[in-house]
Amino acid sequence: MTKKLVAEFIGTFWLVLGGCGSAVLAAAFPDLGIGFVGVAIAFGLTVLTIAYSLGHISGAHLNPAVSIGLWAGGRFGAGELIPYIIAQVLGAISAAGVLYIIASGHDGFSTAGGFAANGYGDTPGSPGHYSVAAAFTCEVVMTCLFLIIILGATDERAPKGFAGIAIGLGLTLIHLISIPVTNTSVNPARSTSQAIFAGGWAVSQLWLFWVAPIIGALIAGFLYRAVFENGVDSDFPKK
Amino acid sequence: MTKKLVAEFIGTFWLVLGGCGSAVLAAAFPDLGIGFVGVAIAFGLTVLTIAYSLGHISGAHLNPAVSIGLWAGGRFGAGELIPYIIAQVLGAISAAGVLYIIASGHDGFSTAGGFAANGYGDTPGSPGHYSVAAAFTCEVVMTCLFLIIILGATDERAPKGFAGIAIGLGLTLIHLISIPVTNTSVNPARSTSQAIFAGGWAVSQLWLFWVAPIIGALIAGFLYRAVFENGVDSDFPKK
Amino acid sequence: MTKKLVAEFIGTFWLVLGGCGSAVLAAAFPDLGIGFVGVAIAFGLTVLTIAYSLGHISGAHLNPAVSIGLWAGGRFGAGELIPYIIAQVLGAISAAGVLYIIASGHDGFSTAGGFAANGYGDTPGSPGHYSVAAAFTCEVVMTCLFLIIILGATDERAPKGFAGIAIGLGLTLIHLISIPVTNTSVNPARSTSQAIFAGGWAVSQLWLFWVAPIIGALIAGFLYRAVFENGVDSDFPKK
Amino acid sequence: MTKKLVAEFIGTFWLVLGGCGSAVLAAAFPDLGIGFVGVAIAFGLTVLTIAYSLGHISGAHLNPAVSIGLWAGGRFGAGELIPYIIAQVLGAISAAGVLYIIASGHDGFSTAGGFAANGYGDTPGSPGHYSVAAAFTCEVVMTCLFLIIILGATDERAPKGFAGIAIGLGLTLIHLISIPVTNTSVNPARSTSQAIFAGGWAVSQLWLFWVAPIIGALIAGFLYRAVFENGVDSDFPKK
Repeated sequence: MTKKLVAEFIGTFWLVLGGCGSAVLAAAFPDLGIGFVGVAIAFGLTVLTIAYSLGHISGAHLNPAVSIGLWAGGRFGAGELIPYIIAQVLGAISAAGVLYIIASGHDGFSTAGGFAANGYGDTPGSPGHYSVAAAFTCEVVMTCLFLIIILGATDERAPKGFAGIAIGLGLTLIHLISIPVTNTSVNPARSTSQAIFAGGWAVSQLWLFWVAPIIGALIAGFLYRAVFENGVDSDFPKK
Repeated sequence: MTKKLVAEFIGTFWLVLGGCGSAVLAAAFPDLGIGFVGVAIAFGLTVLTIAYSLGHISGAHLNPAVSIGLWAGGRFGAGELIPYIIAQVLGAISAAGVLYIIASGHDGFSTAGGFAANGYGDTPGSPGHYSVAAAFTCEVVMTCLFLIIILGATDERAPKGFAGIAIGLGLTLIHLISIPVTNTSVNPARSTSQAIFAGGWAVSQLWLFWVAPIIGALIAGFLYRAVFENGVDSDFPKK
Repeated sequence: MTKKLVAEFIGTFWLVLGGCGSAVLAAAFPDLGIGFVGVAIAFGLTVLTIAYSLGHISGAHLNPAVSIGLWAGGRFGAGELIPYIIAQVLGAISAAGVLYIIASGHDGFSTAGGFAANGYGDTPGSPGHYSVAAAFTCEVVMTCLFLIIILGATDERAPKGFAGIAIGLGLTLIHLISIPVTNTSVNPARSTSQAIFAGGWAVSQLWLFWVAPIIGALIAGFLYRAVFENGVDSDFPKK
Repeated sequence: MTKKLVAEFIGTFWLVLGGCGSAVLAAAFPDLGIGFVGVAIAFGLTVLTIAYSLGHISGAHLNPAVSIGLWAGGRFGAGELIPYIIAQVLGAISAAGVLYIIASGHDGFSTAGGFAANGYGDTPGSPGHYSVAAAFTCEVVMTCLFLIIILGATDERAPKGFAGIAIGLGLTLIHLISIPVTNTSVNPARSTSQAIFAGGWAVSQLWLFWVAPIIGALIAGFLYRAVFENGVDSDFPKK
């Protein structure tokens, strides 16, 4: 169990350092910056790389909503849920700290720009300033589909070995769609880590990035189990 | 069969929400927008992610032209054609509805810009304003090659497990070439879903995005079967 | 043999339509254009998609330099060399024709911009206007490494099934480096197809894009065979 | 052993020619340039392509820090360390020479812009002009995670064949985050090759790009071995 929690800590550390780090350090660099495309690729590759390197240790959830969705889908025990989520949140916050150290080595850096916090309405957390309803809808739907991808790609009937590619690039896809809406969370640990450093509005809007992703994940977990696993258990044993 | 239709519904929902969503929400965001490259990657990743997560349920066609091309290639039964196409169109339209809800949470949003509808001539559906002849040629050829990739990558003789990568990234490639011409369809369900919301010219040009992709798919299906499977059936059984 | 030649024809058709097509139609589209990154990804994906879909038919060379390099490396029979190269060149020229039809459906299109022809010096074929010596060096070295990747990734000792990814993305990489130098050829069939439509300087500079890639391919073929296969034949049979 | 050293020479040659070459030749090309995203993809693809083509010969380290980290992780013998590092540095320097030949075929080229050298503070080696402390932290952390990915993805318990994708795209991810900070090294051979041509500040700052990556690699090697392999050796034999 310690091994698994260390893996979740390191993996979520990497997700936040890589994803939020690329956003803070490189997205808006003059002329050569990586833009939303680069940030989307970075987030996806954090998951892809950890899935193949630490997935055999902990399953590479790296996200409280993923752990909860896997529980709803019958793939993960309730008893491991709280320790996993604690490890993920601590890993995410540590990464935000390291990112702060690196980013503040640059003249004129300030967290007033919002770090890479998620938000809605008239804040830097929603680059396109979307309403709370749009933000909530977006986070629910994106997390729901993310979990469908995860549950499907790790199904015994799916091609072996490719889950890390599908899930990682799935997170890239989600960012390509929704960065303008909420800076894309689908991950409460990631949102929490940035809100702590951004403060103010980011903290007061943090509730949405726990509630909406978890709702989306629960829908996906129960749906996948009810529709796609019903009646096939005898032929295709699940783990 | 219900399971398959739900999978096609969800998969085509994701194709439209991800592909058209990235185009509507993120492509032209000032300075940091994802441009045509990001939209092309997004469309491809919708197919890649669904291929690995729901491909074992329904085959992940997500596109009436693909279902028809697979039928022409001898890989799909005529009896399932109509239900598959209905599920795909309904999934696509539902996604357009969700996208509308999210997009309209942004001040000044309107479908007058064409949503992500496909078109030709002097409409927003053809970003480079290409003639109807160029658009028709382009959609026939692109869909034909798309089906060649699908039929070849799912051939028993191809490396196992990699079809989702080849087919998904094949759709990315098709978008990298042809977004300026028709906004890229190769998928009548995708085109229909956007035309309903864009109205006007998009509806009156919708015929092309059913006729041309289906012609391209039929050519590919009959060609692949006649040329590449002829005489090898005894050695390499097809499914 | 007919099957193989049809596969090489279709595959090289797709390489030119996809790679050169993305360059001509989408690279420089105002604001949203795909730039050199998009063109590099497109060229690579043409090879990746054909490798997985027609590789089991013909080996998916799609390039006279590749066929010659594989011959030098002992992987391909001399007797098939000429028919393969003819099929590749005809496929490439056909694609240039289709691309011309699509591109000319756009007001103000002209091949005076050079189509997507390769070149050196003060022509549109060398976007950065590099000297003939730089262009020659670049094409030799790039093709040499391309063949090292191909010979290595299809070696019996390499992981099975991944060659299409390594080789396709290898071509993407080569374009990321060298589009400014020569528009990137490493493929005489691709260069020939564009020179025919661009005419003038493109035709008179075409010699370089046959000579340099073939030299690079021959170096790689003999090198790989001499250094990396020497003494292992008894343990690892080559096909 | 000769075979392995030739493979490391060629592989590191390709890493520098491809990664630094894309930066020098294509990153800042007017309007169509590949930017930091393209350079990040290029670096990653050099490793991905060599991993699949020469990985079966030498293991495709291509980087002194990787060789040292693999030694710390118990995967590589101390006796091969020095020859590997020499081959890597020589390959990198040769590539810088070829890149110089190609780049200088362009009017107005000069190494005063820093070639693609790594640095910190007020030099072209740190595009965002980050402090030495930020640069040092960044290189330690990035190399540490790079080695975690390498050690994990080549673990016997990880899915077979996918390591080249995870490791290559891991290097892409590292560049997406950290090009603005140090131009991204995590590889002393790559840094050395560029410093030789850039001279001046690049040489005097080179120490950091040996010390920091090696520290990061050592941390990862000892950590992975202590935490993730402890107690599992009997079940999962390491190579």
